[in-house]
Amino acid sequence: MPRRTQVGIIGCGPAGLFLAHLLARAGIDSLILEARSRAAVEGTIRAGVLEHGVAALMQELGLAGRMLRQADRHAGITLQWRSQRLHLDLAALTGGKAVTVYAQHEVLKDLVAARLAAAPGSILFEAPARAVEGIEGDHPAILFETAEGGAGRLDCDHIVAADGFHGIGRGAIPASIRQEYGKTYPYGWLGVLVEAPRSWPELIYASQGDGFSLLSTRSPTVQRLYLQCDPADPVEAWDDARIWRELGSRLATDGWTLTQGKIFQKSVIPLRSFVCAPLRHGRLFLAGDAAHIVPPTGAKGLNLAVADVLVLSRALSRAIHRGDASGLDAYSDTALARVWQAQRFSAFMTRMLHRDPGETPFDTRLREAQLEQIALSPAAATALAENYVGLPFPAED
Amino acid sequence: MPRRTQVGIIGCGPAGLFLAHLLARAGIDSLILEARSRAAVEGTIRAGVLEHGVAALMQELGLAGRMLRQADRHAGITLQWRSQRLHLDLAALTGGKAVTVYAQHEVLKDLVAARLAAAPGSILFEAPARAVEGIEGDHPAILFETAEGGAGRLDCDHIVAADGFHGIGRGAIPASIRQEYGKTYPYGWLGVLVEAPRSWPELIYASQGDGFSLLSTRSPTVQRLYLQCDPADPVEAWDDARIWRELGSRLATDGWTLTQGKIFQKSVIPLRSFVCAPLRHGRLFLAGDAAHIVPPTGAKGLNLAVADVLVLSRALSRAIHRGDASGLDAYSDTALARVWQAQRFSAFMTRMLHRDPGETPFDTRLREAQLEQIALSPAAATALAENYVGLPFPAED
Repeated sequence: MPRRTQVGIIGCGPAGLFLAHLLARAGIDSLILEARSRAAVEGTIRAGVLEHGVAALMQELGLAGRMLRQADRHAGITLQWRSQRLHLDLAALTGGKAVTVYAQHEVLKDLVAARLAAAPGSILFEAPARAVEGIEGDHPAILFETAEGGAGRLDCDHIVAADGFHGIGRGAIPASIRQEYGKTYPYGWLGVLVEAPRSWPELIYASQGDGFSLLSTRSPTVQRLYLQCDPADPVEAWDDARIWRELGSRLATDGWTLTQGKIFQKSVIPLRSFVCAPLRHGRLFLAGDAAHIVPPTGAKGLNLAVADVLVLSRALSRAIHRGDASGLDAYSDTALARVWQAQRFSAFMTRMLHRDPGETPFDTRLREAQLEQIALSPAAATALAENYVGLPFPAED
Repeated sequence: MPRRTQVGIIGCGPAGLFLAHLLARAGIDSLILEARSRAAVEGTIRAGVLEHGVAALMQELGLAGRMLRQADRHAGITLQWRSQRLHLDLAALTGGKAVTVYAQHEVLKDLVAARLAAAPGSILFEAPARAVEGIEGDHPAILFETAEGGAGRLDCDHIVAADGFHGIGRGAIPASIRQEYGKTYPYGWLGVLVEAPRSWPELIYASQGDGFSLLSTRSPTVQRLYLQCDPADPVEAWDDARIWRELGSRLATDGWTLTQGKIFQKSVIPLRSFVCAPLRHGRLFLAGDAAHIVPPTGAKGLNLAVADVLVLSRALSRAIHRGDASGLDAYSDTALARVWQAQRFSAFMTRMLHRDPGETPFDTRLREAQLEQIALSPAAATALAENYVGLPFPAED
């Protein structure tokens, strides 16, 4: 027997979950279909730097209890090059804004728990969407596989594909009108999790020696460190000794030592930029990674997903409650304007901090001059800070 | 018979002439050797956008009489993309600073006339320097060819090679210690001079259609227009009809028409970035284009030369009058710090505004997002404006 909801959401990631909460606040019914199990969703470890506005939205939605107790508010970040560290006072540069370091899977745990508490059964796990149909008409549906292996069907008024880069949603926009923009960077990140106390009170974005590194923290006893690497490197290419040697050299500065510890997880991720346009076709809407990927250097992935669904939730509310489709018509352009700013910022941070395999000594000096400009110019530092803490969400009409 | 002076200057361009005036103000004797004739020096037409500080220095040196009468103060520039124009109010963004549009050869005319009036014979035209000697000792000399074709020798205490990118000065720094950084861009500029009244009250830097164009003004009746082109294009590849068609499309915006007129000069210039380090070897100092080249997009060439010789004149004065060589020792690092900021800015403007032959649709959208950031963010607009009107000259100790 087919199910029915007002808004069918494919994907229980940040985009899908924030959307479900935003719609619920607006009195709109939704159902999330998720391919993975709840344990897999909640156990996939991902970094999390929440923009000022995203942390505020979590509070507004009553989802911030655990975050406020456990997460760190970071009112600054550190940039490092040529063994010098520059503290960027984000709060001073942006009129008091900051970021919250709270891992993405912790956000997901909180949003899943709150959503299921408020609306039991409103997330179907292990229920992979297989296709969408009828998106050009008034009665769209999502066809999915049930946890029991049967064929499911979700009838709805609108479908939101928040199913990630590899999801099925994007492909439902006809190739003839779908434009895709992208770039694959010639380097990746080796990420490691380390049992150790923190070495520095804020995130360090460093570009030194053989390239980029990032020192971040997961908890008082677990640190998250990243190193620019060859994206084709197998994890085995990085034994612990090599990792500590490289981190030591890329983060070296006088009078400071990186605290080492047991490395208990390693992974290599590629760096990629991607944008799909438009974000809407008929009654299908794309949000989050289904529509765009940013390299992680700007810490924008999750935040951009939240901005998408904030705009989309307002548009759906206006359409459903007032019969006014103008917000739905504007969704793609409104969301993409912010997406391109985040792409620009992510590419700027990525290029400034990574050593391109083909870079010349001139290119290296230009990158260093860019970092020096941030040290020299309050305007340049402000331009970075206002993007890092997050551009304002689009205004509500 | 050898001549003698305190500071022997090779090259009668902006660097050499400003230096001679600055040294004269400090009571230091100099002689300029110039390969070309006075008419050639004064007749080589070059654009000129003088930074706030350079225009102020001309006034300070009593060289600004004609400039103040004839030149335009521009308190803003216009950026254009996707047929939209954005007025950047330089003065409002920088606490009242502006640029002065006054062609480089007009500056040279004024500085040559003033220098020869104050110190007749202090510039030798048609006297090409052939070599320098003794720069590692205390008695350096410049060997040159006299206007009559004989062998000349200028003994001096210090030599400043302000002899441009193709001069002999830079090569006198031993290759073993000389580092050169550079990049050649895959596009050039076609520049044309047009008999026409001005079409727009300020400079327009546009990126639209097939790439960059620049609308600037030379006088109320002569306009200077530039178009991004293939750097290998012969001038003949650009007949007048093609030029007007391309300018029309790259500058098109609603409700505005480019005023056409007789094109009376055309030339193609390459775009290049170059830096040599260090700027000093023994008693030889490099300044201006001999040491560094910027692509013209940031309008920094002449201005950077002036900043070099301002720092150098102070250092020479301290060495000559007080026997303190610390300024000479610091010259290269002090000047290069500012040079790299100008290189960064020039590369930023160049990349933002030109269509690279290899650029992808993603790259194009990122460039447009960069322009949009300037429209959206006062901080980003300020960072551009403060570089365009000129970073402060290095402070005097």
